[in-house]
Amino acid sequence: MPGERTLKLVIEYDGTLFHGWQVQSRERTVQGELQDAFERITHERVHIQGAGRTDAGVHALGQTASLRTRHEIGSRELMRGLNALTGHDLVVKRIEEAAPGFCACRNATGRLYRYRILNAPAPPALGRTTHLHVIRPLDIDAMNEAASLFEGRHDFEAFRASDCERASAELAIECCTVAGKDDEVVIEVRGQAFLMNMVRIIVGTLLWVGSGRFSPADVEDILASRDRARAGPTAAPRGLVLVEVYYGERAGPSTSSIR
Amino acid sequence: MPGERTLKLVIEYDGTLFHGWQVQSRERTVQGELQDAFERITHERVHIQGAGRTDAGVHALGQTASLRTRHEIGSRELMRGLNALTGHDLVVKRIEEAAPGFCACRNATGRLYRYRILNAPAPPALGRTTHLHVIRPLDIDAMNEAASLFEGRHDFEAFRASDCERASAELAIECCTVAGKDDEVVIEVRGQAFLMNMVRIIVGTLLWVGSGRFSPADVEDILASRDRARAGPTAAPRGLVLVEVYYGERAGPSTSSIR
Repeated sequence: MPGERTLKLVIEYDGTLFHGWQVQSRERTVQGELQDAFERITHERVHIQGAGRTDAGVHALGQTASLRTRHEIGSRELMRGLNALTGHDLVVKRIEEAAPGFCACRNATGRLYRYRILNAPAPPALGRTTHLHVIRPLDIDAMNEAASLFEGRHDFEAFRASDCERASAELAIECCTVAGKDDEVVIEVRGQAFLMNMVRIIVGTLLWVGSGRFSPADVEDILASRDRARAGPTAAPRGLVLVEVYYGERAGPSTSSIR
Repeated sequence: MPGERTLKLVIEYDGTLFHGWQVQSRERTVQGELQDAFERITHERVHIQGAGRTDAGVHALGQTASLRTRHEIGSRELMRGLNALTGHDLVVKRIEEAAPGFCACRNATGRLYRYRILNAPAPPALGRTTHLHVIRPLDIDAMNEAASLFEGRHDFEAFRASDCERASAELAIECCTVAGKDDEVVIEVRGQAFLMNMVRIIVGTLLWVGSGRFSPADVEDILASRDRARAGPTAAPRGLVLVEVYYGERAGPSTSSIR
């Protein structure tokens, strides 16, 4: 019998028609659709571990996942099979052999999220599933000033969902920026890990800074308050995309190239 | 009775579910949906003239159209009404009063088209309705060299559909460029006017240059041959977007600001 292999998958999806990453008994989810497709190909039921449990409606360009299998199928053949069996809104972009014990979630050293906003009088037609629409002109400079306050190590208790189960809310954000170009506003947040709804609450808070309801100084107070009720609303999922997951020196087992 | 007004509309649409711009008796079209919505609001049947008759599946960020009406409805109210009555994949972004006699098609001094390609092993999930997928790595430098040969005034007989009705195929292209960034390849073509399918045939020909089937010198020969059969295929519509229509000094009547 062949030994156990660990595979690393890089996955892109349009989250519009998924009820998020995590398997649910009755709803279509990314993890569920991948695990079902894998089972149809290999007749083996595996757990596919994602680096981030994206919410319903959130997209991914570079979600990363890992699985352990004893099946000998080649990476290219597996990729073709998974892409044939899943919907067109879910694509496995790359499959690599990983070192034994590699976990896409635990070994991730960084995650980059991007949130896109159309700041214009009329809503987007082409970007209607990928952009939040904000009519009132946003103050990008104020948003950027407030965004920089999130950088560094903080207690993000005010910026997580009430049902977030992580013991500690203390995390480090490496980078949080707001950039405007024409009528598009792009918020990027990069950190090692995130709490439940954290990026969307940060975005919702920055949007209130952009509209003048909060000042950058207010954001400092909200962080210090550790009070979710004081932060802005949870921004709609459709603007959010998990762009990339990093596996740096802290990643432990390194991954080899495509089979 | 109030005098006749001329309105200029800037329109964005996701062409995926439209059978193109031009009214058809049984199919959903952009022009048809706009004219029907206008009629429901004003009880007046008008002809809405587009600057470009985009094909089925082609998108627009800045399609421009004009219409003449005797109705006194304000531009903002009309915009709200049209956006309420048309699908979410069709948005009127701006309505301006234009000088009498302004025609969005005849007065256009330039049109900018963009074609987007994902050049990667796996197809796009998020960009599946906006990008052509090309697996084989494209030679961007060769494509760019060939693209520059389209610039200037040429007889584009080899680059138009057989049922194109324009008398002369002689036109000027101001700019034709190919740019690659990460796994996205973007082709931009700007000119005063275009023949039927012209941009898509140019793109199909450049793709054959990118894959090595044509050399840049071949493109010069194809242009000179005036033979459609020698050019590349008509590239799929989903990668194409009409980005902007220009009304420069040759535009005649100038348009006023938003009402």
